Amino acid sequence: MTETRARIVIIGAGFGGLKAARELAGKPVDVFLIDRNNFHTFTPLLYQVATCSLDPSEIAYPVRSIFRKQNNIRFLLGTVVEIETDRQIVHVQASGDSHEVPYDYLIVAAGAVTNFLGKADLEQFAFGLKDLFDALALRNHVLKMFEKAAWTEDEADRAALTTLVVVGGGPTGLETAGALFELYNFVLRREFDNGHQIRARVVLVEALDTLLLPYPKSLQRAAKRQLEGLGVEVILGKAVEHVGVDHVRLKDGQEIRTHTLVWAAGVKGSPLAETVGIELQRGGRLPVERTLRVIGLDKVYAIGDIAWLTDAKGSPYPQVIPVAQQQGVLAARNIMNRIQGQPEKFFRYRDKGIMATIGRRRAVAWPFYTVKLTGFVAWITWLALHLIWLLGFRNRLNVLVNWVWNYLTYDRSVRIIVERDFAARDRYDVPAAIEQRREPALEADGIAP
Amino acid sequence: MTETRARIVIIGAGFGGLKAARELAGKPVDVFLIDRNNFHTFTPLLYQVATCSLDPSEIAYPVRSIFRKQNNIRFLLGTVVEIETDRQIVHVQASGDSHEVPYDYLIVAAGAVTNFLGKADLEQFAFGLKDLFDALALRNHVLKMFEKAAWTEDEADRAALTTLVVVGGGPTGLETAGALFELYNFVLRREFDNGHQIRARVVLVEALDTLLLPYPKSLQRAAKRQLEGLGVEVILGKAVEHVGVDHVRLKDGQEIRTHTLVWAAGVKGSPLAETVGIELQRGGRLPVERTLRVIGLDKVYAIGDIAWLTDAKGSPYPQVIPVAQQQGVLAARNIMNRIQGQPEKFFRYRDKGIMATIGRRRAVAWPFYTVKLTGFVAWITWLALHLIWLLGFRNRLNVLVNWVWNYLTYDRSVRIIVERDFAARDRYDVPAAIEQRREPALEADGIAP
Repeated sequence: MTETRARIVIIGAGFGGLKAARELAGKPVDVFLIDRNNFHTFTPLLYQVATCSLDPSEIAYPVRSIFRKQNNIRFLLGTVVEIETDRQIVHVQASGDSHEVPYDYLIVAAGAVTNFLGKADLEQFAFGLKDLFDALALRNHVLKMFEKAAWTEDEADRAALTTLVVVGGGPTGLETAGALFELYNFVLRREFDNGHQIRARVVLVEALDTLLLPYPKSLQRAAKRQLEGLGVEVILGKAVEHVGVDHVRLKDGQEIRTHTLVWAAGVKGSPLAETVGIELQRGGRLPVERTLRVIGLDKVYAIGDIAWLTDAKGSPYPQVIPVAQQQGVLAARNIMNRIQGQPEKFFRYRDKGIMATIGRRRAVAWPFYTVKLTGFVAWITWLALHLIWLLGFRNRLNVLVNWVWNYLTYDRSVRIIVERDFAARDRYDVPAAIEQRREPALEADGIAP
Repeated sequence: MTETRARIVIIGAGFGGLKAARELAGKPVDVFLIDRNNFHTFTPLLYQVATCSLDPSEIAYPVRSIFRKQNNIRFLLGTVVEIETDRQIVHVQASGDSHEVPYDYLIVAAGAVTNFLGKADLEQFAFGLKDLFDALALRNHVLKMFEKAAWTEDEADRAALTTLVVVGGGPTGLETAGALFELYNFVLRREFDNGHQIRARVVLVEALDTLLLPYPKSLQRAAKRQLEGLGVEVILGKAVEHVGVDHVRLKDGQEIRTHTLVWAAGVKGSPLAETVGIELQRGGRLPVERTLRVIGLDKVYAIGDIAWLTDAKGSPYPQVIPVAQQQGVLAARNIMNRIQGQPEKFFRYRDKGIMATIGRRRAVAWPFYTVKLTGFVAWITWLALHLIWLLGFRNRLNVLVNWVWNYLTYDRSVRIIVERDFAARDRYDVPAAIEQRREPALEADGIAP
């Protein structure tokens, strides 16, 4: 590497970080792209991994492959644990070792994590759905609860094991609730017929009085109708008060016996933001100028879910993929502009609309905020868009094969419980706190005889 | 379930247990099939999961799907921890609970585990390759060693991280060594070019003076030639003396610096055999009559890798899939014969030959012990046979797509490191001993700055 070239460090290989790196490919700078995983995750389909429709590798793409031919981009696998802006260094944990990586310019694209609102019961018992590990943990858990139900004599205990509660009326909550019900209805129901009859209940809980807050009323109603038509129970206007190992209690005292709570009710900026040493905005996000430079810091840019920027009306830009991608491009361009003595540009969001899918042949969509689509037409729109989107993925053929297969057969070929000891044998980075999570609950979980 | 029907419990949903269950499908008996996984594993392709060619779900098939339409077969997910022959009960651990499952007849098809010869250093540092978790652990480990190498400045340290040693000159050792070298040569080599040059070394060590002991000399030589032609170093006639976190020492004092030792040098019967309370045969196997009844026990049959039976020449039948499958059928038939007052039959092995693959377009095969095939012809034979074999698998289409893709592009789409915390969050059955494994080593592993 030439000493005179500026080094740009990008933290995070999500949609924002990838766009930034791509923009810098071939430019006269050295790019270090750091991520805690060796793959980029196609997050819009995470819920399909969680509900046994897709394999992890179908939505995960090795970062090194993406930049194989880019000589000025170097990928490093590791967890950035601290940003030290005074010394222009990021601290990285990798394979049990600590490294210091200096930067000339830094792009923080570390994303967001599930926001459990600081509640210990949620931290312990709720499943997030923000990364591939969340998706696999949920998949394994749901399958194991059904297997446990097959051992369980008491009918009420059995019902609790096969009751799945999803909290959050946004797109992730809807997609997950719909896909969970379909997993049961088209697959698990047929396979647990021997011995006891196994029935599942999927309940979607939203604290507000409506699903899909930013959508027009007609689409909100259509979404609720489609969910209920599928078989999902929808509870609106009730927040979750407390979660235990075998129940969820709502604010009005209503208690649902369940062992599975999916928390899709909000995210917050990655904890990495806290190490920057500036005052964070709402949701733990780094406030940025319209150039995407972090306010008060000269060499640091922030993009995507971890960044806080308001639009002309004073509302923060939403934590969605298109914002992250467009900010990734702009941050990279602004850094190149500065290096080349050009003025920086301001962020302008090109918003192409919103959509949410609810299950096979059910969705709502509002492309470009013009025509409002529901049902099969909306679903086809969603499907086509995601298939085109996946074009950049090497494994799109397999994804297509799996989808078509699922559609024709209602079968799920990937519902294998992959866990046990393999991951425990050789891992470096698991914080003790995470490792202990849920374990005490399961120890205390004495349902079956 | 009718009280008067006999209950047959089958332990293990491997190739033997599945055949036994299939044979009993629709018969006037109640079958309980118990396995510690909810899936059957197509073990001949485990090494392809370990070397990033196939996804776990492509070689794992949910057991419940297989018997969905068989009303007299009930699957239960759990780990059989003890067989109590006096009370005719098996003890099962499932989801943290203990269950007692009574049987009228028992088929023990619990298979084999890696035989680390009781050596603590092997237990701690060597990777087995007997189940899906082994395969994933090895895949994750190899990928992480390459990633660690990308952080490592010292050339010798870097070389140690990318040196992979496979011990065992049987088919598994050959397949694994060949596939590991191809993973490096066609994939990883191209992606670690930025920064440091990464070179890999794959070494196959065998204590005997030849590879593939039961094969004719010409095929043994062909196998060695093909391995070396690929780039694998072959060391014959040297046993492993000691293994540490960063080296392997052979009996003659030769030391190889490595962080990855794959132990494919032998198996032993599942530890479950020890709970039966009879004297075991060599390799921890249950001695059985020619009817497959365990010697000295009236109601217990053993089949496959965990069973010990000698042929007319006094040699034990090999621990291979066809033996397990044929024994599974016979054990089921003999139990039905007894229930129906018919005489039992003796085991006769129909042996269709042996084959081993070494990499793309390289293999040796000896079908029906007639013509000896090597190279491309042997490989095509191997490929065709395994594709036909996979016909029973729902996901054969994906496997085919992946294989063809790999063949045409040399690319590996599934090399994502899937581990970290997800498995730790919600698992029931991990013995503490396994969980601790390798961890101290990694703590002490201070290679990079």
